[in-house]
Amino acid sequence: MRNIRVDIQFDGSEYSGWQRQRNSYTVQQAVEDTLKKILDEPYTVNGCSRTDAGVHANRFVLNFFTENLIPLEGLKKALHYVLPADIGVLAVAEADLRFSARFSCIAKEYLYRFYDSPDKNPFLARYALHHDFRLDEERMAQAARHFLGCHDFTSFLAMGSPACCTERNMFESEITREGDTVTFRILGDGFLYNMVRIMAGTLLYVSLGKISPDALPDLIKNCQREQVGMTLPPYGLYLNNIYYMGDPGADAFLTPYREKRIAKNWN
Amino acid sequence: MRNIRVDIQFDGSEYSGWQRQRNSYTVQQAVEDTLKKILDEPYTVNGCSRTDAGVHANRFVLNFFTENLIPLEGLKKALHYVLPADIGVLAVAEADLRFSARFSCIAKEYLYRFYDSPDKNPFLARYALHHDFRLDEERMAQAARHFLGCHDFTSFLAMGSPACCTERNMFESEITREGDTVTFRILGDGFLYNMVRIMAGTLLYVSLGKISPDALPDLIKNCQREQVGMTLPPYGLYLNNIYYMGDPGADAFLTPYREKRIAKNWN
Repeated sequence: MRNIRVDIQFDGSEYSGWQRQRNSYTVQQAVEDTLKKILDEPYTVNGCSRTDAGVHANRFVLNFFTENLIPLEGLKKALHYVLPADIGVLAVAEADLRFSARFSCIAKEYLYRFYDSPDKNPFLARYALHHDFRLDEERMAQAARHFLGCHDFTSFLAMGSPACCTERNMFESEITREGDTVTFRILGDGFLYNMVRIMAGTLLYVSLGKISPDALPDLIKNCQREQVGMTLPPYGLYLNNIYYMGDPGADAFLTPYREKRIAKNWN
Repeated sequence: MRNIRVDIQFDGSEYSGWQRQRNSYTVQQAVEDTLKKILDEPYTVNGCSRTDAGVHANRFVLNFFTENLIPLEGLKKALHYVLPADIGVLAVAEADLRFSARFSCIAKEYLYRFYDSPDKNPFLARYALHHDFRLDEERMAQAARHFLGCHDFTSFLAMGSPACCTERNMFESEITREGDTVTFRILGDGFLYNMVRIMAGTLLYVSLGKISPDALPDLIKNCQREQVGMTLPPYGLYLNNIYYMGDPGADAFLTPYREKRIAKNWN
């Protein structure tokens, strides 16, 4: 038995998210259809994350088990040619049999992109949230720093979602501007449903002056969804990276958290 | 009577080109539907160019005549809010009554974008032609220089097109590379149907070694469509700019050609 790990990236605009659904086309379905064509057998793949319709991924990891002996390089080439043009293959590797794209994950990084200009940019319509007025990235950055560390993030959980285990640990949280694009980047050990889109909406409210940057610690502590910002639309959101134990880069920022993570993920 | 000039830009992916058609949605239709909503009357707009389905525009100019007294700034804002997200407004201005977006044009600039990398980039699937192998931009640049000047471009005219007046004057023609993106930029006084896509296909053949850069002068002179490259797909093509007499920038490169152009366009 082989456990094959595949790293992909995708433009999520045309898909109803990652997870297979009965009546709409999803990225999981596209990948499984492609594997069936290549390997001549049906497969079910495990994805690292459910992403919503319209959400993009600069890196998304999946794995599946097979007895097929296809060489990795051949599988990568075949995926490259058979997958739709809006799904790309970054890497194909043989993983430890204990590896699960979903459960072995130790950290994820998301981006939320804003585009602030009086003129719309039609080429960013599916890739960034347009805002007519200039955003105040200084205020947003002040607020974003308060996400750092270990908190109960119930305030940033979509209402009606099951709410057990709502504590998450944020390792990096920053705002950067490049021209008319403002990017919120956040890296943590895990995220609640809609959490990044609500965080981004809260930072937008901070920019608009509806919320003070200094209010963030209390807003987090209060665990009241209605006190923070709106859920922003999916198309500004990118799963940017995903880290597994032993991945290059993961070791540096995870050293302080390593023992805790090992205990949690590899039992 | 007012003659209103509107400069827009659009992501052409979701449209069947510019020109109104009976059974499919076009950019012209989207603009006319929008004007009807804003001004409460039907309008027919004149576009600077027919573009094919999937072709993009970084700048596209249209004009229409109206008795409506709406201020230009108000019209620009309304267009901004009512037009679909993949069509942006760059400028709204009052033009001379003799101005026609189509017939007053003195030069157009097109880009054709290639993306050459062993890995597909899913975010460029609708915006550049992907090529698995590295393109030879030096060879392509050598060939592209031969397009400069006044030639009969019948070799680069889609077969079956009406073929009168096939002489065009190319002012600038160059190849640039930025990372994995190779761009062919060409500026001329006019272009035949599919001409830039066939020129780009010919440059691709030059890169692949199927055509020598030095063969270009003869290939142009021979006026044989089947001797040059294939017509590349529309989604790599951008109408990048469009020049009218008196436009900033137009004067510099057009000075040597000015008298001829004035005679042609403003009679």
